Amino acid sequence: MTEGHGDDVYRYAGQIKVNFSTNIWQYPDLSALKRFMMSRLDFVASYPEPEPYSLERHLADRLGIVDDQIMVTAGVTDAIYTIARDMAAGRRCGIVGPTFAEYADACVAAGNEPVYFSDAEKAASNADVVWLCNPNNPDGRATDAGWLSALISDRQSVMFVIDTAYSDYCRAGKLDMRAMSGHDNVILLHSLTKQFCVPGLRVGYMTAASENIRRLRRHRMPWAVNALASSCAEFLVDNPPVIPVDMLLAESARMQREIASMGYDVTPSATNFFLCAAPAGTAAGLKEWLVAHHGLLIRDASNFTGLTSRHFRVAAQRKEENDLLIDALREWIGKYC
Amino acid sequence: MTEGHGDDVYRYAGQIKVNFSTNIWQYPDLSALKRFMMSRLDFVASYPEPEPYSLERHLADRLGIVDDQIMVTAGVTDAIYTIARDMAAGRRCGIVGPTFAEYADACVAAGNEPVYFSDAEKAASNADVVWLCNPNNPDGRATDAGWLSALISDRQSVMFVIDTAYSDYCRAGKLDMRAMSGHDNVILLHSLTKQFCVPGLRVGYMTAASENIRRLRRHRMPWAVNALASSCAEFLVDNPPVIPVDMLLAESARMQREIASMGYDVTPSATNFFLCAAPAGTAAGLKEWLVAHHGLLIRDASNFTGLTSRHFRVAAQRKEENDLLIDALREWIGKYC
Repeated sequence: MTEGHGDDVYRYAGQIKVNFSTNIWQYPDLSALKRFMMSRLDFVASYPEPEPYSLERHLADRLGIVDDQIMVTAGVTDAIYTIARDMAAGRRCGIVGPTFAEYADACVAAGNEPVYFSDAEKAASNADVVWLCNPNNPDGRATDAGWLSALISDRQSVMFVIDTAYSDYCRAGKLDMRAMSGHDNVILLHSLTKQFCVPGLRVGYMTAASENIRRLRRHRMPWAVNALASSCAEFLVDNPPVIPVDMLLAESARMQREIASMGYDVTPSATNFFLCAAPAGTAAGLKEWLVAHHGLLIRDASNFTGLTSRHFRVAAQRKEENDLLIDALREWIGKYC
Repeated sequence: MTEGHGDDVYRYAGQIKVNFSTNIWQYPDLSALKRFMMSRLDFVASYPEPEPYSLERHLADRLGIVDDQIMVTAGVTDAIYTIARDMAAGRRCGIVGPTFAEYADACVAAGNEPVYFSDAEKAASNADVVWLCNPNNPDGRATDAGWLSALISDRQSVMFVIDTAYSDYCRAGKLDMRAMSGHDNVILLHSLTKQFCVPGLRVGYMTAASENIRRLRRHRMPWAVNALASSCAEFLVDNPPVIPVDMLLAESARMQREIASMGYDVTPSATNFFLCAAPAGTAAGLKEWLVAHHGLLIRDASNFTGLTSRHFRVAAQRKEENDLLIDALREWIGKYC
């Protein structure tokens, strides 16, 4: 799916005051990164490394794993498609959903017909490859790390692909990356977009046991990661922007309570973003109304498989901005419900 | 093949005075592009368009084609792999070679076993999909555009994939892109890397009939082209750096003559780069000797399928630099042959 994702602020040039349609913090201080980029503009005149080994070594070093347990990709999406190409052929793919559409799309592109399941255990009992986003997009549901770790150990014949893109925005226990790299039936996906608030860079990585990484690297085309993106990623690993996670989680919890109290159906979320359903009308109509009347952008979530035309997703931003959305949602429910 | 390509200057930090291993001009004035980039560093904080439609419209407008006859990719390599995935399955793939390794690698990655042919007509008589680099890498051979156009018209059941990456460095007649977009059996590949001397950006595009582009776009994953790369490409289309093509072609011709006169076997080239074979020893040995004794980097071409351990490729640069290489090659042949 190339259209219909969130953070489509590029469609509404000049109309948006606050962007809640993303699932990341909108106001990181990226000034140090920009200064670094200004010093590296010569990158355009040289080929990047054919494979981003320098960045892989740097990340592996920081993460305490060995460099053949990591593979850098052009964003997590690239990782998802690479895994699907390698593992989907002739195997039963199970997706724990509703969730990010690209797991299913990548499986379909690889000639597979994935099936959705409501939890990882059901998926593991019925599929050879299990795709799980943890914490989950769009609802912020966090699967318990201990339970998940036990499931992975128990189902050796199942390959678990676990997208941890949102784990930096969540206080729930995380799977131990180093321990997981010792299992040959789990691949963890990591997003620099989410971790460092840089969706424009297109860099992500996966960590897994060496034999899985070696196998996945065979699908890599040369020069897949832009040279500036790669060097920016190295910089960010050492100089991460500060993300006010505690504030965002407190605000998310407050927004969930207030919006639920108005009559919206809110799914409890452990992250900075959460899923709601309007009591009447459609998310698409609500989204257009919020843009037109308040300059606020939400994510129409009706195109997630398993959700309805009433579902939308919101990511907490600054307190005063969140208040604007809360007030606008109250105004809308008063008018139309 | 991710390792073993040319322009591996990143391996020899600080040792290289002149890089002949690339096939592009090393000294474009990219100062306007860099000023533009400095004004666009905010790109890191926002998702790019899911598909690079703005750049596609802009390019189509400049090229005089319609915007569903163009597909922008993350470099030509991405285009090659996308086409291979779509067209290679179950079809006979013929490659006109020796040539760029990625055509074969992309076919193999798609589960195909491509066969090499010495010219496009033989390939078209024995394959369903013909891959041709014109002018060709590594030898600069230019296939006549009129002859090729007639072959394309004559073999309606064969899909021709023609990589025109080097056509801006060649005065031989080119296929008419607009006319070719009217044929449903040809896809042209275009490289911004080569056209604008920006290998670090990773942007390319293909042009073809609308029905082929629609089909290929279905393979596109979202956000495949980095946001800064996409906006830089738009800038470059309107503000291309000046490439001294006439000087480079004259220097290439002079170098070919002088190097051939020493006893190297030089394949006549219509472009700024050309292929040589050492009369003795190996290209790998010559390459290391040139780096160690003169700080000059050439492309060991022995890993092109169909070439030998003695083959290397050189791209003309500035006259005085070319003289350094000519002198060094003369010294080597005096010492070792």
